[in-house]
Amino acid sequence: MNNRIGKICKDVKPLDEKLLQETQKRLNNLTKPVGSLGYLEDIAKQFVAITGEEEPSLKNKIIFTLAADHGVTEEGISAYPEEVTAQMVANFLQGGAAINVLANHIGAEVVVVDMGVKEKLKIENKKPITRTKLGAWANMKNFKDKKINFGTKNMVKDSAMTRKEAVKSIEAGITIFKEQYKKKRIDIVGIGDMGIGNTTSSSAIASVITGKPVEDMVGRGTGIDDTRLANKIKIVKKALSVNKPNPNDPMDVLHKVGGFEIGGLVGVILSAASHRVPVVLDGFITGASALIAYKLEPEIKNYMFASHCSVERGHKVILDYIGLKPMFNLNLRLGEGTGSALGISLIEAGVKILTQMATFKEAGVSERK
Amino acid sequence: MNNRIGKICKDVKPLDEKLLQETQKRLNNLTKPVGSLGYLEDIAKQFVAITGEEEPSLKNKIIFTLAADHGVTEEGISAYPEEVTAQMVANFLQGGAAINVLANHIGAEVVVVDMGVKEKLKIENKKPITRTKLGAWANMKNFKDKKINFGTKNMVKDSAMTRKEAVKSIEAGITIFKEQYKKKRIDIVGIGDMGIGNTTSSSAIASVITGKPVEDMVGRGTGIDDTRLANKIKIVKKALSVNKPNPNDPMDVLHKVGGFEIGGLVGVILSAASHRVPVVLDGFITGASALIAYKLEPEIKNYMFASHCSVERGHKVILDYIGLKPMFNLNLRLGEGTGSALGISLIEAGVKILTQMATFKEAGVSERK
Repeated sequence: MNNRIGKICKDVKPLDEKLLQETQKRLNNLTKPVGSLGYLEDIAKQFVAITGEEEPSLKNKIIFTLAADHGVTEEGISAYPEEVTAQMVANFLQGGAAINVLANHIGAEVVVVDMGVKEKLKIENKKPITRTKLGAWANMKNFKDKKINFGTKNMVKDSAMTRKEAVKSIEAGITIFKEQYKKKRIDIVGIGDMGIGNTTSSSAIASVITGKPVEDMVGRGTGIDDTRLANKIKIVKKALSVNKPNPNDPMDVLHKVGGFEIGGLVGVILSAASHRVPVVLDGFITGASALIAYKLEPEIKNYMFASHCSVERGHKVILDYIGLKPMFNLNLRLGEGTGSALGISLIEAGVKILTQMATFKEAGVSERK
Repeated sequence: MNNRIGKICKDVKPLDEKLLQETQKRLNNLTKPVGSLGYLEDIAKQFVAITGEEEPSLKNKIIFTLAADHGVTEEGISAYPEEVTAQMVANFLQGGAAINVLANHIGAEVVVVDMGVKEKLKIENKKPITRTKLGAWANMKNFKDKKINFGTKNMVKDSAMTRKEAVKSIEAGITIFKEQYKKKRIDIVGIGDMGIGNTTSSSAIASVITGKPVEDMVGRGTGIDDTRLANKIKIVKKALSVNKPNPNDPMDVLHKVGGFEIGGLVGVILSAASHRVPVVLDGFITGASALIAYKLEPEIKNYMFASHCSVERGHKVILDYIGLKPMFNLNLRLGEGTGSALGISLIEAGVKILTQMATFKEAGVSERK
C-alpha cells in the first residue's frame, strides 16, 4: 500500500471501550427508562467514543459531494445522459439540488468536488437558482477541483483507471478533508456522490469484495427498465471477467472497476476517521467506497454511521457485510449525500439527548422500583 | 356519538386526489430522477393534499404531550412508581426531558397537558433544569390543566372511567388544539404521552379494536422482566373479561379500558385533522389513540404520519391495522412525543424538497434519455 494511505490507516484507532461504558452510565442517569431511546443512545455513545469528547456538539457539519464520470456509460447502462454529471455540479453550486435543500435543513455546508468529470468545468459565481434562494450554499467557494482525469475508461474494455490514478484519487480525498478541517474544525462529515453510471461501477466493486453474485448487486440506478437492467448485469459481469479484480487488494478493485469519486470518498472516510471525526454514509455508492475503506482498514467500521438503506438492492448486502445498521428506510435512491444529511440530524438528536437532558437527581424524578 | 365529536368527524374530509396528482407532477420536474427521494416525496404530496397549500412551510410546530395516571398501576404492571407521571410533568415544564431536547432540536414548542394526573399539580415557574438551559420551553405558559379526574380507576375491577368522562376527555383534546390554534395558526402537530401504566391500557385498547390476541399486544413498557410481563398479560386479559368492551363502539373501549391522556389525544387528532393540520404519531400509546380516532372516523388515516415503529410489539399491529407506514425504526420506546419530533423534521425535509429545489428547466439539466 502507498505510504501516505498506509499511515492514515494506522492513525485509525480502536474505539475507547471505557468511554463507551462511561457514556452508557451517564445515559442511564437521564430522566427516561434505561435504553428507551434505543439507537439514539447507541449513536451518542459511539459519537463520544469516536471523538473522545464527553460533551460533544455538532457545530460544523460538512457534506462532501464528489462528482466524476464513468466511461462505462457508453454501454447504455443509465437512464440519463452523461452530461448530467457536469450539469448537476453546476446545480449544486447554485443551490438548486436536493442536497442543497437538505443540507440547509440540517445546518450543514456542502463542499462539491470535481474528482473526474468528463467536461472541463467552468466554475463561476452564478445567481442561486433555488426557489427560496439558499444563496449561502450556492457559491464557488464551496467548489474544489481535484480532477484526476476526464472520466474513467470503459471498464468492459480496460481498467477504469490506472493503479496510480486509484492511489491519487484516495490521496485527493484525504487532502479534501484536511484542507477543509484546517479552515475550521469539523464535527461531523456526511458523504455523497454524483456520477452518471456510478451504480454500475459500485455494483462491480460490491460484488467482488462481498463475493455475492452480480445479480444481487445490480439495481435500477436512476430508473432503468427491465431490458436495460438485464444489460447492466451483463456489463458488470463482463467488466469483472475482463479485469479480474483481486478481492483481497482493494486498490486493485478500485483501479479496475471503480470511479474517481469513489476513490475520493475512500480518502475522505479514512482522513476523517484518522482525525476522529464521524462519517455518515449515504446510499449505494458511498457504500461501495466504505467497502474499500473497510478492506484497507477494518477499524474504520466504528467511525461510520449508515443513514439509510437504499432501494439499490446491493446496498443492504454492503451494510450487512461491514456490519452497519441503517437508521431509516425511506426508499431513497438519489445519492448526492441526501441520506447523509438526514442521518446527521438524527445523530445530532442523539448527541443532544446525552448532553442536554436532566438527570433523575436534577429533576427530582423517582427511579425504578 | 356525542354531537360535538360527531361534527368534528364530519369535518374531516377526504384528501383532494387532483392536488396529489398535481404535486406529483411538480415533484417530477425537480432536478432528480423521478421518485428517487421515495417516501420524502410521498410525504410532500400528502402534506399538500392535507393542508390544501401548494407551497406549504412548517413554521409553527407544536407537540402536545398529554399526561394522566392509570388505576391499573396498583396491579404492579410497571417498572416505575406512579408518582413519576407528575414528576415528569414538572420535568417537561423545566425543559429537562427528552421531549424538550428533541423539540428544541427541530424548532417545535411543547404544550404539556394534565389530562388526569393523580396528584393535584402545583405548577409554578421554576428555573430550567436542562443542562443547556432550553429555557424557552420551560415555562408554565406551556402548561394546560384539563384534568378530567385524578387518574383512572383500576380497570380489572371496574371501567377505567365513565362513558361521560371518555367523551369529556376527547372534547378536552379538541379544545386543547383549538385554543392553541387560535393563538397562532399551527402548521404541524406532533403528539405524545406520559402516564405510568399506559402501555397496559393501550394493549387492552389495541387488542379489542384489532381483534388480535392480548399476548401479541403486551410489551415490556418502561422495562419489566418476564414475571411482570406474564402478570401484565394476565391483567389485560382480566380487564377485558371484566369490562367486555365493544370493539365496534370506540367510545365504549375508551371508557372501559382507556386513559384520560389517550382520550385527549383522540381529540387532538380529530381537531387537527378537521383544521387540515397534519398529525405525527409517536409510539404505542399515541397509536392506541389513533386506533380510536380511526374507528370514529376512518378518513382520519390520511391526516396521520407514523414516525417510528416502537419496540412495544403491539405498535406494529396497530400501524398495519390502520395502514400507516413508519418512517424509521430506532428501537424507541419512550413516548412523550420523542418519535413525533424526529418525524416532524423528516416531514419538513420532504416539504422543503418540493418547495425549494430547482426544476430541470431552471437548472439547465438534461432529462431522461
